Amino acid sequence: MKKLVMPVSTEDILDLKVGEMVELRGVIYTGRDAAHKRFINAIENGEELPFNPEGQGIYYVGPTPSKPGEVIGSAGPTTSYRMDDLTVPLLERGLKVMIGKGKRSEKVVEGMKKYKAVYLAAIGGAGAYISDSIKECEVIAYDDLGAEAVRKLKVENLKLTVAIDSEGNNIYEEGRNKFMKKDFSALSLELHEKNRGKVQMSSKIAVKDRDDLSIAYTPGVAAPCVKIHENPDDVYKYTLKGNMVAIVSDGSAVLGLGDIGASAGIPVMEGKAILFKEFAGVEAFPICLDTNDVDDIVRTVKNIAPVFGGINLEDISAPRCFEIERRLKEELDIPVFHDDQHGTAIVVSAAIINATKLIEGKNIEDLEVVINGAGSAGIAIAKMLLNMNVKNVILCDRFGAITEDYEGINEAQLEMARVTNKNKEKGLLKDVIKGKDVFVGVSRPGMLTKEMVKTMGDKPVIMAMANPTPEIMPDEAKEGGAFIVGTGRSDFPNQINNVLAFPGIFRGALDVRATDINEEMKVAAAYAIANSVSENELNTENILPMAFDKNVAKNVAEAVKKAAIKSGVVRK
Amino acid sequence: MKKLVMPVSTEDILDLKVGEMVELRGVIYTGRDAAHKRFINAIENGEELPFNPEGQGIYYVGPTPSKPGEVIGSAGPTTSYRMDDLTVPLLERGLKVMIGKGKRSEKVVEGMKKYKAVYLAAIGGAGAYISDSIKECEVIAYDDLGAEAVRKLKVENLKLTVAIDSEGNNIYEEGRNKFMKKDFSALSLELHEKNRGKVQMSSKIAVKDRDDLSIAYTPGVAAPCVKIHENPDDVYKYTLKGNMVAIVSDGSAVLGLGDIGASAGIPVMEGKAILFKEFAGVEAFPICLDTNDVDDIVRTVKNIAPVFGGINLEDISAPRCFEIERRLKEELDIPVFHDDQHGTAIVVSAAIINATKLIEGKNIEDLEVVINGAGSAGIAIAKMLLNMNVKNVILCDRFGAITEDYEGINEAQLEMARVTNKNKEKGLLKDVIKGKDVFVGVSRPGMLTKEMVKTMGDKPVIMAMANPTPEIMPDEAKEGGAFIVGTGRSDFPNQINNVLAFPGIFRGALDVRATDINEEMKVAAAYAIANSVSENELNTENILPMAFDKNVAKNVAEAVKKAAIKSGVVRK
Repeated sequence: MKKLVMPVSTEDILDLKVGEMVELRGVIYTGRDAAHKRFINAIENGEELPFNPEGQGIYYVGPTPSKPGEVIGSAGPTTSYRMDDLTVPLLERGLKVMIGKGKRSEKVVEGMKKYKAVYLAAIGGAGAYISDSIKECEVIAYDDLGAEAVRKLKVENLKLTVAIDSEGNNIYEEGRNKFMKKDFSALSLELHEKNRGKVQMSSKIAVKDRDDLSIAYTPGVAAPCVKIHENPDDVYKYTLKGNMVAIVSDGSAVLGLGDIGASAGIPVMEGKAILFKEFAGVEAFPICLDTNDVDDIVRTVKNIAPVFGGINLEDISAPRCFEIERRLKEELDIPVFHDDQHGTAIVVSAAIINATKLIEGKNIEDLEVVINGAGSAGIAIAKMLLNMNVKNVILCDRFGAITEDYEGINEAQLEMARVTNKNKEKGLLKDVIKGKDVFVGVSRPGMLTKEMVKTMGDKPVIMAMANPTPEIMPDEAKEGGAFIVGTGRSDFPNQINNVLAFPGIFRGALDVRATDINEEMKVAAAYAIANSVSENELNTENILPMAFDKNVAKNVAEAVKKAAIKSGVVRK
Repeated sequence: MKKLVMPVSTEDILDLKVGEMVELRGVIYTGRDAAHKRFINAIENGEELPFNPEGQGIYYVGPTPSKPGEVIGSAGPTTSYRMDDLTVPLLERGLKVMIGKGKRSEKVVEGMKKYKAVYLAAIGGAGAYISDSIKECEVIAYDDLGAEAVRKLKVENLKLTVAIDSEGNNIYEEGRNKFMKKDFSALSLELHEKNRGKVQMSSKIAVKDRDDLSIAYTPGVAAPCVKIHENPDDVYKYTLKGNMVAIVSDGSAVLGLGDIGASAGIPVMEGKAILFKEFAGVEAFPICLDTNDVDDIVRTVKNIAPVFGGINLEDISAPRCFEIERRLKEELDIPVFHDDQHGTAIVVSAAIINATKLIEGKNIEDLEVVINGAGSAGIAIAKMLLNMNVKNVILCDRFGAITEDYEGINEAQLEMARVTNKNKEKGLLKDVIKGKDVFVGVSRPGMLTKEMVKTMGDKPVIMAMANPTPEIMPDEAKEGGAFIVGTGRSDFPNQINNVLAFPGIFRGALDVRATDINEEMKVAAAYAIANSVSENELNTENILPMAFDKNVAKNVAEAVKKAAIKSGVVRK
């Protein structure tokens, strides 16, 4: 993470690239639209500004009066577009840093390129967090504006993301794709080449002399072999099986890249393996299959199952993933879990649980939910929400709401059509979204508009998970009246990230030698994730735990274990 | 390894268990049969012994005059049975430790149990090694016996194996099976249970914050995926493949345990994996297959091949192993190697190369070899020796020498019958062994007798690899006139141990991204192993490097690489 000490030089600014995180310290100034109007008036009238903008930064904030003992109250960023028409003259006078949230206008970006400035975005849900970084606060101008008076802040360790850099690269406009190519992409290639992948096999024990060898290998190794032969369950006692998961993929639906094949999918499966280890101490090995045939995949996974305590299916395209999962669940006595379906469903469910807590008078049982995207993730989310007793779920696809007579309906969708869409509503998303409580998007960018949000019920909840660009951008959704917005992205509040679910789920399942990961365990996982956010922390910009909160996996594992025991799917 | 400081207490002795290694230091005495006769006479006549045996040890050695600057000359153990009738009176008087080689009589063992003593065996080929451990040497009695006079030795770091312990557990009588159950077996169960197996997956990189995650996982991970999709060979550059071997077994022929199944075979495959890592830095993962069907195994291995740089087949029973290996070699573009066949063949070949160096006037091309046991290992050895241009190989099985009209001959044997046994010799082992230069046993204990060895050609070489009890015990073979004897055991000289071959072979193959492990590479490996024993070290008790000599894998890898490049089976 780059350090940025205020005031800055042009060189400091040129060094910052879109998508990077920076840690800022030093003096910055506050100013919202009322203050900006006065800046511009001052410039037009040749008057002096409250501070010389040369090398400085402005934080678009609306500070609230501080409570006793605090330097400042909640100090969240305000939406930056209000300043767009009032910004270029400041850039011209040397302003280098702007901090806020949301998009900027074309004119501002042009000004930034011309005068070399950056626009930094506060991390979502950052109000309370930012006030902690503010060590001193002093009003220096426009006292009469009250909360909007210009303040001089001294900050430390303020973590921000470069949203628009001095070359005009724009995180909002171009999504992750563009800046990836500039940055994470190159770093990732370098990392992968240097390490030749990301996971390794190593020995748990030392083999330094003949005795070590006699114990770990022949002749001693015959003893555990014989024990397992006599009592098959001893395989959990004497081998790696009890902590080893196969990450199985045929590379047919990898990230947003599609059917790139087994070999090209390996880096993703290795990545998943390190997340299993990092978040829950679960070991995992990538099994990338050189076949797309369902029978062949099922047979292969069954054949290699003896060394694995669980199977995590990954990035296998629909509808094959349904049959593969169903058959493996039936035929194997270890847990089988398709993360793209159930991991997503569990985290979305957790988000909806916590969103509902924030809406007075509404319970889970009252919710009407529209899921846009009727593929594997959409169907899994629908099933899970029904298991959690929501009032109504409507699955929606390109040609509108799914009913039994939907043209080109597939088997999995038909099965869902029978249990969803209680009132047999028909029509496109824009029709069926009317009056509903929750929108869940697992579809494509831009599918939901501000206007559609306006037609939804009271305090609508939006989970827009298309990646990298969501079905609707959070700002737009808010403008349409959204009460809570979640996306798949880490640079917005309420990130729906599967890493909150799968490590803890397998940890719990392996710990009790579960034979399955059933509905009870999934629902338990969703509640455990939701309850990892304390009542104190819970707010509309923070309905889910942070992805790096290691306690989540522990809570999930504990809940999953209990549910497995209660539902009778444990081996011991 | 236990330490034993001379003189010892009874407690020290009770603590020693058969099969354990000890490191001995302190004072011991020498005495062969002539000296022992005088001890007994002294006892019978009530005279004093040259030393009080209470708590002491005797080494059955025939020291030779030392060269200038040496404490003692070659100080190898002599065969202990000569002392058997003269031992019990000494045990009765408190002798606690005997050091020698070869079996002891029933009477001695009974005496050891009664008076609590141990019999320690010097490690094979130990003459020169033992003299290094002797720091002082002084003749204390019976000067007139010359080389057989009684000496007082001060030794350090003398490594010995407990051959018979104070409970009468006897390494010679019961082979490894018995003491295994007492010792390595329990230790092995403990080790496996404590560690839940022996290998683990771990991460090569740290994932501590969002940036790490963005590089190792999404969005950055898309970059290596795309690269591999565009250029399939990049899978070696960006993933674990280039250093990862699958150890594939169906558990049908595990150790001496037979068809114990996939799960029960896991500890052996994990053991193999740690040897790959320890000896050559090669990572390996156990793939234990829940099927014995050839088509199914071939299809499964092909399906999972994308993440592996090589396939090591292990413990798959004949004749299925032949077809599985042949088809996988044809259908995969990564090396496939059945270690039970080729690993053994390579190490046996190395042993024969070095044995031949010690026989003046004989070259590899002059050798006539009888291989007893016409299963997978026997056939692989025969093929390899023919590739090395030995004069004649006769494969022999239960009903005698294999010819094309051998009753019940299988396909693999028939193929071999056409190229082996030049003179179409018929008859049992005892018939065809006559006049031959080399015996190779991959069969059962006791198949070769002293009498048969006597009928062999000049300076016969015996490789008796039945485990744990060889086709003939080394002492017996020597009595029959064997010039060199090797076995599969680490407690005799010249151990044929596959660990000398497979780690280096895969290291070399992976380093050049080989598409095959061909005959040229195998022959190169055999010569590299043989040449790892320097001319200085080479003697009849030391024709192979020690299993723990890490340089061997390096030498083998280097030779295999060159052979792969020369024979055109490298990818880069």
